[in-house]
Amino acid sequence: MSRWQPDARGRLARAAIELFTEQGFAATTVPQIAARADLTTRTFFRHFADKREVLFAGDEELPALVARLATDAPAALGPLPVIAYALETVAAAKFEGQLAYLRTRRAVIQADEGLRERELRKRAVLADAIGRGFRARGLDELTAILAAQLAVTVFSVTIDRWLDQDGERPLSALVHDTLRALRAVAAAPAAPPHRA
Amino acid sequence: MSRWQPDARGRLARAAIELFTEQGFAATTVPQIAARADLTTRTFFRHFADKREVLFAGDEELPALVARLATDAPAALGPLPVIAYALETVAAAKFEGQLAYLRTRRAVIQADEGLRERELRKRAVLADAIGRGFRARGLDELTAILAAQLAVTVFSVTIDRWLDQDGERPLSALVHDTLRALRAVAAAPAAPPHRA
Repeated sequence: MSRWQPDARGRLARAAIELFTEQGFAATTVPQIAARADLTTRTFFRHFADKREVLFAGDEELPALVARLATDAPAALGPLPVIAYALETVAAAKFEGQLAYLRTRRAVIQADEGLRERELRKRAVLADAIGRGFRARGLDELTAILAAQLAVTVFSVTIDRWLDQDGERPLSALVHDTLRALRAVAAAPAAPPHRA
Repeated sequence: MSRWQPDARGRLARAAIELFTEQGFAATTVPQIAARADLTTRTFFRHFADKREVLFAGDEELPALVARLATDAPAALGPLPVIAYALETVAAAKFEGQLAYLRTRRAVIQADEGLRERELRKRAVLADAIGRGFRARGLDELTAILAAQLAVTVFSVTIDRWLDQDGERPLSALVHDTLRALRAVAAAPAAPPHRA
């Protein structure tokens, strides 16, 4: 039982996602996950604090990573290209080749109220971190907050579309669709051309 | 005890906000609120389902109201003017003359994890409703989602700035600041003018 188990973490994560999908997140217990992975609960708790962490492991580093990308992007870039650059960098590091897993993960999260709230909190924390990154670029307070909110919107809308698609269009192509649509929304006439 | 109590609802709401501010939301009980208002707990529950509803009463109607404003705004208006129109209409109906109360309410919500989550959920529900309003205007799916997310961003950033200000600038002036900054962010160059 105490022998080293090859890829114990990966086996636990796969077993957890299978069970969450089959019977729901709330109904799944840590002993069930460990049994499915043919490991002990002690091994589970060596890798994850709880069953929720299986879904969100690695997310804690995301705000700091994205804030650093926003701070360090070439000075000449405007806010939207910085957002595109950060999203493409994060996608290459964390999402590449994980389409099927990320689709399953999203379905598990959408089916559970508590997990949806956790996801919303994650976005709020991400927006705060990106706002700090934009302030470090010299943007004023209002512009930094708006740019950070736009970043989180572009991230979540683009990732949702990437997961929704039938084909395998790369995330970078979808980022450009999102930015083009966003520019069109913001550039639409400020006042109606004529009034009735 | 069963006599009609003039403005019982208002007295309960004021008592609740006082107690939330003095001792925190979590530590405040319904019997304490009723006692502070000089009313019974039975009267409290005739007006509110629980202590949380004192802070969020009336919010359930907001998504439908804003979706209707987005649907019914003059056809010639682009998405950002629709957002400005909807925010100014909601502000006139619900926020006018309530600056002090809304500041206190925000402080109570920010001090409590559960209330902050409730506030985030409220924004997600609002974005879904506004997205339906924009689709009813004939916007395509991607544009409607982006416009709805922008609406929620403009709403929350503008209201925060309105509550943060020292003076008494009207919300409509602050909406225009937000939209101007948003247009500037979205219009910034798509690519750097030159590379190092």
